[in-house]
Amino acid sequence: MVPKIVDHDERRKEIADAVLDLIARVGIDGVTLREVARVSGWSTGILSHYGGSRDELLLLALRRAAELAGESFRKASQDTSLSDLDKITEIIYESLPVGHSRLALQRIFLFYYARAATTTDDLFSAEMRRYLENWRRVIARCVDRITESGGLPPEADSARIAADIAAIADGSSLHAILDPILMDRLTEDRSIPHSWVTAVLQAAGYDDTPHFHMPE
Amino acid sequence: MVPKIVDHDERRKEIADAVLDLIARVGIDGVTLREVARVSGWSTGILSHYGGSRDELLLLALRRAAELAGESFRKASQDTSLSDLDKITEIIYESLPVGHSRLALQRIFLFYYARAATTTDDLFSAEMRRYLENWRRVIARCVDRITESGGLPPEADSARIAADIAAIADGSSLHAILDPILMDRLTEDRSIPHSWVTAVLQAAGYDDTPHFHMPE
Repeated sequence: MVPKIVDHDERRKEIADAVLDLIARVGIDGVTLREVARVSGWSTGILSHYGGSRDELLLLALRRAAELAGESFRKASQDTSLSDLDKITEIIYESLPVGHSRLALQRIFLFYYARAATTTDDLFSAEMRRYLENWRRVIARCVDRITESGGLPPEADSARIAADIAAIADGSSLHAILDPILMDRLTEDRSIPHSWVTAVLQAAGYDDTPHFHMPE
Repeated sequence: MVPKIVDHDERRKEIADAVLDLIARVGIDGVTLREVARVSGWSTGILSHYGGSRDELLLLALRRAAELAGESFRKASQDTSLSDLDKITEIIYESLPVGHSRLALQRIFLFYYARAATTTDDLFSAEMRRYLENWRRVIARCVDRITESGGLPPEADSARIAADIAAIADGSSLHAILDPILMDRLTEDRSIPHSWVTAVLQAAGYDDTPHFHMPE
């Protein structure tokens, strides 16, 4: 018998995507080994090679969510058609629980945020802290470029500005999950993340009159 | 035998305070019926009259936290020595996980936020939504008074301004629980909540030159 060649990374990704899809539809509580087997089409036996317990499946989904979020942040920050302010707005928008797949990402992050905050197990805290720092770092780099091009005063603290922007986005995501009116507003009005970014930048002395841009 | 007169409300409050104290010291995971009995001095038998399970003790603590937070918001909003902007700043500061008792409040709220967001049980969602709405309403009333005294343009949307201020505060609290640098900054620099409030107000057209105040 010739052993089947299995791309384990690819299969892990597909299982994680099935878990995220389930989270978007029925929430974290709806994730069970049996249900993941049903929607993914793999047996619980095969699933057990990748994550034998509900906890392991959720962790698989968290890491996939972090990967997907990282990809979308990278894509926005490398989009040369966007200004740095618009890049930040796009990065923020990608973090909101708007639409099926982003709702799943926000739910799994919130679940692990709360877990990291309530458990004494430092493993999750360290992992969640790393995701948070990466996200804020992508934003801070855009802020730095705004400062370099003269849009912010040289003393602007990009780490603090990025932290404030990330906070208003995550706080709004947290509240939108409870508050259907806010969720509708975030879904329908794409100018909202832009208004957050400009509010924080303007408080740091942002000047939106056009500046001379140095060729890169 | 004369039955002892027990003030059940008072005892419930004392048990809830013991649970909150435990949460501040060891986190949500450290709350067990046995440990609450040990630190409160009541037997598990007596505790079972008020909350027989860990879940019921946590719910007792959540409601006590909401009561304590509500008291501090009311106190700040009725402090006639403060301007309306300073009232909002104080209300926001009181929500941050800075210091022993506020850390407990933030942890229990975060635990239930996550629970409401991840469970299909609508009971917690409704309760958490009510707490969130009350908090934002207290802020919105201060914003309305700023508008009435001419500090904001008449079309300023106080509900949306309050939602943004609450979001940046809750997002920062969420992040501070993971990020010790942010936690230190929030603890040491009381000007930070003030900077959030002014950033959001200024984006809505806030003008901080003195205005003529109508007598109330």
